[in-house]
Amino acid sequence: MSTNHYQFNVVMSCQGCSNAINKVLTKLQPEVSKVDISLEKQTVDVYSSLPYETILEKIKKTGKEVKSGNTL
Amino acid sequence: MSTNHYQFNVVMSCQGCSNAINKVLTKLQPEVSKVDISLEKQTVDVYSSLPYETILEKIKKTGKEVKSGNTL
Repeated sequence: MSTNHYQFNVVMSCQGCSNAINKVLTKLQPEVSKVDISLEKQTVDVYSSLPYETILEKIKKTGKEVKSGNTL
Repeated sequence: MSTNHYQFNVVMSCQGCSNAINKVLTKLQPEVSKVDISLEKQTVDVYSSLPYETILEKIKKTGKEVKSGNTL
């Protein structure tokens, strides 16, 4: 199972915001193997076998604004 | 179409948190007619023709902790 590395720029104002995103993404384990969020950099790094669109939609459902996203 | 009034107690740390919840719920218009969020009281009031469970699930998908909820 290949793992992709996606990075999203997400507007997060506080640790409550970043924790919420971390919570919904870690629920996708084991298809999501690692989530790394930087509140300072406003980035969400996701390592997953799932498609990019699936992860993007999951983040959007948190109600947070996704500025951009890439596959690295 | 009858409108129900639901109230949820949700852990929200900042306006970014409350805005996120407001965003996902107002997307359910017109089935959700009004959303009233108090960051101070940690409450989310929703006026909707949709079932309680539908609204609860939508809030849970934001990754925020829902402490309790009622139909008023």
